[in-house]
Amino acid sequence: MEDLKSQLAQVIRGYHQKGWSPATSTNYSFRLPTNSNVIVVSKSGIDKSLFSENDFMEVDMQGNALAAYEGIRPSAETLIHCKLYQLFPEMMCIVHSHSVYSVLQSMKNQTSVELSGYEVLKGFEGIKTHETTVQVPIFDNTQDMPAFANVLEEDKVRLTVPAFIMRQHGTYAWGKNLFEAKRHLETAEYLFEVDWKFSEKSV
Amino acid sequence: MEDLKSQLAQVIRGYHQKGWSPATSTNYSFRLPTNSNVIVVSKSGIDKSLFSENDFMEVDMQGNALAAYEGIRPSAETLIHCKLYQLFPEMMCIVHSHSVYSVLQSMKNQTSVELSGYEVLKGFEGIKTHETTVQVPIFDNTQDMPAFANVLEEDKVRLTVPAFIMRQHGTYAWGKNLFEAKRHLETAEYLFEVDWKFSEKSV
Amino acid sequence: MEDLKSQLAQVIRGYHQKGWSPATSTNYSFRLPTNSNVIVVSKSGIDKSLFSENDFMEVDMQGNALAAYEGIRPSAETLIHCKLYQLFPEMMCIVHSHSVYSVLQSMKNQTSVELSGYEVLKGFEGIKTHETTVQVPIFDNTQDMPAFANVLEEDKVRLTVPAFIMRQHGTYAWGKNLFEAKRHLETAEYLFEVDWKFSEKSV
Amino acid sequence: MEDLKSQLAQVIRGYHQKGWSPATSTNYSFRLPTNSNVIVVSKSGIDKSLFSENDFMEVDMQGNALAAYEGIRPSAETLIHCKLYQLFPEMMCIVHSHSVYSVLQSMKNQTSVELSGYEVLKGFEGIKTHETTVQVPIFDNTQDMPAFANVLEEDKVRLTVPAFIMRQHGTYAWGKNLFEAKRHLETAEYLFEVDWKFSEKSV
Repeated sequence: MEDLKSQLAQVIRGYHQKGWSPATSTNYSFRLPTNSNVIVVSKSGIDKSLFSENDFMEVDMQGNALAAYEGIRPSAETLIHCKLYQLFPEMMCIVHSHSVYSVLQSMKNQTSVELSGYEVLKGFEGIKTHETTVQVPIFDNTQDMPAFANVLEEDKVRLTVPAFIMRQHGTYAWGKNLFEAKRHLETAEYLFEVDWKFSEKSV
Repeated sequence: MEDLKSQLAQVIRGYHQKGWSPATSTNYSFRLPTNSNVIVVSKSGIDKSLFSENDFMEVDMQGNALAAYEGIRPSAETLIHCKLYQLFPEMMCIVHSHSVYSVLQSMKNQTSVELSGYEVLKGFEGIKTHETTVQVPIFDNTQDMPAFANVLEEDKVRLTVPAFIMRQHGTYAWGKNLFEAKRHLETAEYLFEVDWKFSEKSV
Repeated sequence: MEDLKSQLAQVIRGYHQKGWSPATSTNYSFRLPTNSNVIVVSKSGIDKSLFSENDFMEVDMQGNALAAYEGIRPSAETLIHCKLYQLFPEMMCIVHSHSVYSVLQSMKNQTSVELSGYEVLKGFEGIKTHETTVQVPIFDNTQDMPAFANVLEEDKVRLTVPAFIMRQHGTYAWGKNLFEAKRHLETAEYLFEVDWKFSEKSV
Repeated sequence: MEDLKSQLAQVIRGYHQKGWSPATSTNYSFRLPTNSNVIVVSKSGIDKSLFSENDFMEVDMQGNALAAYEGIRPSAETLIHCKLYQLFPEMMCIVHSHSVYSVLQSMKNQTSVELSGYEVLKGFEGIKTHETTVQVPIFDNTQDMPAFANVLEEDKVRLTVPAFIMRQHGTYAWGKNLFEAKRHLETAEYLFEVDWKFSEKSV
């Protein structure tokens, strides 16, 4: 577990450097390989440029802090992590970004980002060819996390790739391990950027 | 204090790398935790890519060098720091950038940057929801620092978030400590970039 | 050979940082200086931010894994490397990117990128003056590697500079050694970016 | 001298990382503090990501290699350095970039970049206020270095700030030492970027 904490912390600091997690924003988690009912999640309010393996805490599948962490506040969005792990039981890691291009995509008048014909689409698990079209859903942002968890549950059918955007907020992506979750997030962010820059041109 | 100098110096070098403080530009300060009438401010003319804990000096609340630093020139904009500390007595740290997007925002025909509906707005202390609209004021640039200090005092009511832009110059942000000041600056800069890029699209 | 592996691995990690090889995408190779029928190629599915000298394998000129590497999957695009080495027998190294600007260039309605008058064109071997015009060909992307290898062979005459684009995919570049291959890729990518940004302006 | 080589080499590697010196392009020099008739200039053809203190050579004020460096090729543009040192005898260091924004600026139909009202203009030696307008001249690119040296001499009056652009090529900047030359280049590049991005908006 210490290794996983350390690896994810390094990924987080790297994402801060890319501009994906300004200041204290964004949150991350993984489930214990030895007990997938325990979620190791980033603590609230940590500067992501300095995030270390000591900045995680453990919660249960309802988002309650485990005894050893009583009184410490998990990320406000922990319930999103809990719901995603419930909806996709094989998933073991969730990553998040506030990237500029995911926010820009979500400010267009659209309910999903349509991505078509890109080689990098193969970065999403299960996609074997660029000759495909993917819809990354955009959900409205909210501060009401239980309500948002319900939206995810009700709209699970729209989650055809392991990523979605919260409007004017950012991207969530997940995978069977950190390696896969990271690949899914980088795939999504790359495609959001290319697609945005191309659409600027073709205006 | 040595720790604070070293931490702020590291932040400054990082901001140079982001392109927020080209060459010797921008300035930074904090007040002594043990004596808030002493301001530790960046010396004038230091290359920000090499800024170290030795590149600070101490001034009083009127911007005069303390005895130990006699003859050394503080940043030309030290009076801005002094005035902000007077106006907001709880604030202990001030950071600054010459970011491209703050300058671009200030070249639009507007007296403030309106930011609405972004999750990252919660990076400003006291904001708890994205469902809000914030005005970051833009003040005209000047080389007359006493005059600018007066503008800040007269227009204090416009400083509803802990940041403002000087036109064709850059952003000032502040906080109760380095951590908070840094969060406010990164929040502002991120939002200026997203908002600028979106407005390009929608032209 | 260990040195070459280590140098190329460092280049790959650097390209990941530039955003040229998101997640596990892109592939790279060099031929053994002591036996140019052996191709040392990147293994499939490695996160490029962590690519190390241990993430290479050896294949023959038909792309079959050598005995010591039986059962390990080379990059899916190994056949492209094999064909390029056949077509250009003096070439000893091939590099690849999925850069945003190569993809954007390929989404314009064009079969090559025309680059004219740039000083940096001299980065392509054999070009001695900016007063020239170069066409970097764009080939349609495909998952059928034998078919693509045939396209390269049939259209060899279009490969007047040591680089081409696969549509919505990225850039391949090659050289007589890593140093030259790297120079050719960086030259191409720089020019794609400048040319794209200029064409946005002149719309 | 070894210190100066080492400092300039570090600056060069940093500029490569910013994208200002793709592959082997760009060149740099300083004059010996102990003998200003000796120019220490970057050797030709070195990958700028790996440039070290060993990659310099010495030439005289006519650009001829000193005896110890016979047979080694200095940068092709050494004559530009020689001419600038002749025209501005107090200058001791010259830096260069192939930045994207300097090239973009030079592709507009203009013979200089007009920069007005920016705080960062104060980065140019002698400018004390943002309330000024500066013209950075653009000269046509050429491979004929003696001819270009003549252009510089004839148009010296246009060099009102310590920087110029070669069209579709890049920026030269200089100063009384490395610190000042670096400040001038970073000042120019920052302003080229802001000005370009603003002009895109206002189309």
